[in-house]
Amino acid sequence: MKRSAISVGIIAMLSAGSAMAWETTLLDTDKPMAAQHITSAKLGIKAAKPFSVTTKRLHGGRQEGVTLVEIDTGAMKITVVPTRGMNVLHAVAGDVRLGWDSPVKQVVNPAFIELNGRNGLGWLEGFNELVTRCGYEWVGHPGEDTDGTLLTLHGLAANTPATKVVLSVDEKPPYTIRLKGELKQQAFKKVDFVIDTELNTVPGATEFTVHDKLTNQGDYAKEYQALYHSNFGTPLLEKDAKFAAPVREVSPFNDYAKADLPTWQTYRAPTKDYDETVYNVFPYGDDDGNTLAVLHNAKGELGVSLAFNINQLPAFSLWKNTDTEGQGYVTGLEPGTSFSYNRRYQRDLKLVPTIGPKESREFMITYTLLSGKAKVDDALKRVETIQNGRETTVREEPLVALPKH
Amino acid sequence: MKRSAISVGIIAMLSAGSAMAWETTLLDTDKPMAAQHITSAKLGIKAAKPFSVTTKRLHGGRQEGVTLVEIDTGAMKITVVPTRGMNVLHAVAGDVRLGWDSPVKQVVNPAFIELNGRNGLGWLEGFNELVTRCGYEWVGHPGEDTDGTLLTLHGLAANTPATKVVLSVDEKPPYTIRLKGELKQQAFKKVDFVIDTELNTVPGATEFTVHDKLTNQGDYAKEYQALYHSNFGTPLLEKDAKFAAPVREVSPFNDYAKADLPTWQTYRAPTKDYDETVYNVFPYGDDDGNTLAVLHNAKGELGVSLAFNINQLPAFSLWKNTDTEGQGYVTGLEPGTSFSYNRRYQRDLKLVPTIGPKESREFMITYTLLSGKAKVDDALKRVETIQNGRETTVREEPLVALPKH
Amino acid sequence: MKRSAISVGIIAMLSAGSAMAWETTLLDTDKPMAAQHITSAKLGIKAAKPFSVTTKRLHGGRQEGVTLVEIDTGAMKITVVPTRGMNVLHAVAGDVRLGWDSPVKQVVNPAFIELNGRNGLGWLEGFNELVTRCGYEWVGHPGEDTDGTLLTLHGLAANTPATKVVLSVDEKPPYTIRLKGELKQQAFKKVDFVIDTELNTVPGATEFTVHDKLTNQGDYAKEYQALYHSNFGTPLLEKDAKFAAPVREVSPFNDYAKADLPTWQTYRAPTKDYDETVYNVFPYGDDDGNTLAVLHNAKGELGVSLAFNINQLPAFSLWKNTDTEGQGYVTGLEPGTSFSYNRRYQRDLKLVPTIGPKESREFMITYTLLSGKAKVDDALKRVETIQNGRETTVREEPLVALPKH
Repeated sequence: MKRSAISVGIIAMLSAGSAMAWETTLLDTDKPMAAQHITSAKLGIKAAKPFSVTTKRLHGGRQEGVTLVEIDTGAMKITVVPTRGMNVLHAVAGDVRLGWDSPVKQVVNPAFIELNGRNGLGWLEGFNELVTRCGYEWVGHPGEDTDGTLLTLHGLAANTPATKVVLSVDEKPPYTIRLKGELKQQAFKKVDFVIDTELNTVPGATEFTVHDKLTNQGDYAKEYQALYHSNFGTPLLEKDAKFAAPVREVSPFNDYAKADLPTWQTYRAPTKDYDETVYNVFPYGDDDGNTLAVLHNAKGELGVSLAFNINQLPAFSLWKNTDTEGQGYVTGLEPGTSFSYNRRYQRDLKLVPTIGPKESREFMITYTLLSGKAKVDDALKRVETIQNGRETTVREEPLVALPKH
Repeated sequence: MKRSAISVGIIAMLSAGSAMAWETTLLDTDKPMAAQHITSAKLGIKAAKPFSVTTKRLHGGRQEGVTLVEIDTGAMKITVVPTRGMNVLHAVAGDVRLGWDSPVKQVVNPAFIELNGRNGLGWLEGFNELVTRCGYEWVGHPGEDTDGTLLTLHGLAANTPATKVVLSVDEKPPYTIRLKGELKQQAFKKVDFVIDTELNTVPGATEFTVHDKLTNQGDYAKEYQALYHSNFGTPLLEKDAKFAAPVREVSPFNDYAKADLPTWQTYRAPTKDYDETVYNVFPYGDDDGNTLAVLHNAKGELGVSLAFNINQLPAFSLWKNTDTEGQGYVTGLEPGTSFSYNRRYQRDLKLVPTIGPKESREFMITYTLLSGKAKVDDALKRVETIQNGRETTVREEPLVALPKH
Repeated sequence: MKRSAISVGIIAMLSAGSAMAWETTLLDTDKPMAAQHITSAKLGIKAAKPFSVTTKRLHGGRQEGVTLVEIDTGAMKITVVPTRGMNVLHAVAGDVRLGWDSPVKQVVNPAFIELNGRNGLGWLEGFNELVTRCGYEWVGHPGEDTDGTLLTLHGLAANTPATKVVLSVDEKPPYTIRLKGELKQQAFKKVDFVIDTELNTVPGATEFTVHDKLTNQGDYAKEYQALYHSNFGTPLLEKDAKFAAPVREVSPFNDYAKADLPTWQTYRAPTKDYDETVYNVFPYGDDDGNTLAVLHNAKGELGVSLAFNINQLPAFSLWKNTDTEGQGYVTGLEPGTSFSYNRRYQRDLKLVPTIGPKESREFMITYTLLSGKAKVDDALKRVETIQNGRETTVREEPLVALPKH
């Protein structure tokens, strides 16, 4: 456990599980997020790829006070937003960017958003991340729940600032880098959820894992929903880009999505007035429930895969927002407990699970950049392996008959 | 008026009324709240008990930017939250805590709350204090007022950050410590209220007084309501803990509270699915209107009293939220101008008073820790003295016939 | 280009258009607003009148974190609020103040306002400026638009903090001082507006110009509305103060305003229970569309003029809130694209224009203090010149038949 002296004095050695790890608290009740630049060299870690972690604070406009943590693995820069539910803003590897170009150019501090504004669509004033957490009381379109309460778009998670943020680096290979952030969703009589989020990666990697644990700290069983709104624009998304996954069932989200059902796995070029189509997918998993969703460009030379488990995240939304670039040319690969209907519609679908008192639920997704045809092909082969010849049910009709406006 | 030199340079000598007092402005337009630790020793005050005042700022999550002022009398630590309406977070004397364990663990900055969220119940996302100010335009359950405006739960006071905070210490015995905070509730055409709050105590005390002055700065008479939501959990609250007050009339808040009316002055142990019962009380006062409400534990060896005046605060709500500990095992002793019905229902009860232009109303409550059987008995005796054999009317039916949901 | 050394190191020389100018960024993503005091002497500028620019940050209450920029031309102190849409708080020349006394005494940080509160009237909790920007998606009274969305009073502009603020001073006479602030109104799928605001003045001036450019960065045409809520109290406003403009058509905003239509250009003394009357004016312009609106005191010795162009701002609201001083004795001279009806009512009036993708619209208003009878008379003469004997249509009935409550 040789290491260089740490002059900044903020790094301590802790046992994290069985392995020894460097650990530093970046944010806590008595500790504001300070500007820091932590490097593997400073930590005395001899990883093959030097890595670094940089924190900063944004100013001006609705960004005032927002903090960012950028993990540079040496091969990919992953930017996390503690102020916005530990969302992943983007991940950049060389000239490939995982993420998208939203019209929303600021990283918006939740203090400046009214989620109840725009009839429950206020969330759209801050939406621009690669990975946006949705939940955990509800997800889906805004509207009144059966008891008359307005449920705002996709819940509070993305606009919940992390109460505590801890960075750790394992002292042994592969020197796993972990950024943990705690989210509290608490309201007297209503909810007592804590979400322990983690993003981990390793030096030199062009992938990262989001690993969250939702705990119901309350004394009563509660409904919950989770959805990981994972969004990709160019260069992955383009005309004839494709989506692949082992699919047990697919159906159009609404009537509008019916027309493109035959080509639901292929993307259009930016298309004026297209707006969006959404397809509700129930993926197959392997014997352990593990599955893989893949997005790749037209030539099949560049892509991304999301590895997750259908026992944790059984419902998968494919959101195809192939409108113009200025409108936000983007697709969402969205593993969830639920689809994007308002919660009131999902109970009948058995997609509003409950979590008992003191129980926890884990959600894990690994995002892997697929650089080159070989890696894309490997991922597609894995999809085929999981599908294993099993049939795909294509439902022509939406699962929910939404009211006409 | 001998005193030691004050190096910090922030303490000035002012005449406060007739007495001389040390005074320092902790927060003002041109002065952010800074971390301070002020001690009686530094002030050169020779009180029998050394005391101190500490200010700090919280970070992370929805706490970002929240300031606290902790007054340590030498016998009790009283924590006030300027960012949240000068509410009293808790008061701790040795191993006795006045306050409660809410599922809401953060001291929430109002910037992060939408009071209009959850159909007007957003307030619950920040509710965890010992003394939470409710008002001053309205109190009570959320719902539309007669003109169609959504009144959010218990008004804006608890989520109104203080504009100016001043600490003073009298230079003569009993060296009264005063923390003053100014709240502004102003909206063009709607309201121009200023609430001059004060919390005072003395060195060595295990009691404190909240003394507020509401002023209608506007040119028109306005409706107003005030309610001091004073909340106690363990160790005072427990199975067979009891409430006592001189009672002129008591009635159940709603149909659900009817069942427990016979035992309304006794508390249950934490009870799953109990939710809450509320009893509307009109207390008797003595010839000057002074009255006393007492909560004590089962053995009658530990309690708290609230001394107030029924000419200021004629309506008293006893809120019995004896649900599970995780749900928030708590009782509220709530002196007010009004009960907790939505304002629209209280006009007929004559519990929506008006305040004329430039008029003021004062509200004063003294919270006293009762340590030991003697002190509890003294308080109960005082209650009996005020009751003075006068009759208690027990109304079986709620004052308001609330609509069924 | 001789100049003194600038020790602060924040001033750089840039070419702004054709002229050379000092320029400094006061606020940007990586630059918080710092307390500064910049003087013409420090800049080495030999203007006839020394001038200065001072920045500061406010604390306490709902002001926490608000920044101000005060431009002192040497003859007038103009205070701008970057945190509130670059609004102009007030402009003071000697003992004459342009601005008014609102019951709202704080300069409110938008983080603490819920615009959706008070049924869409939350905006009133922050309204106290001389120039309050309204728009740019909508202006007008709150209420549901035809699609059911609650439009909050006067849009988001006034509660949009500027993302970037730049100060520049031309290096050649007249040494124009420019304060530029960028506002972003962006919501995925809904809007992508950027408003480049500018306030400019010159050393020694008692006037300033607001010059804004609205750009629709999106790929779709959008509805927009703008209204410059320009508000004046004493000493300009008083009994028998008068309004003058070249008027093509005037009509009462609603039934209540009908009664005072005969005297719509004359002001009352503060009048209890008057509330407000509003008159909808279509001004005449000269051949280029330029027009002038004038407010002056009873003796015609003190006034203000607003010079603007009816091709940019065709609709003008005269808001006469001559209620008591405490209620806010104030008149609004409001050049706009639209009147103050809810957007749903203005489409039929052709007062909800659209802006195509990548298009811009400019809005320019020059506010000039008129000191002395000569200047007031000159302004009134200019009004007459523009009117040029053309007829004024006085409509007795409001343009919109509002529903009765």
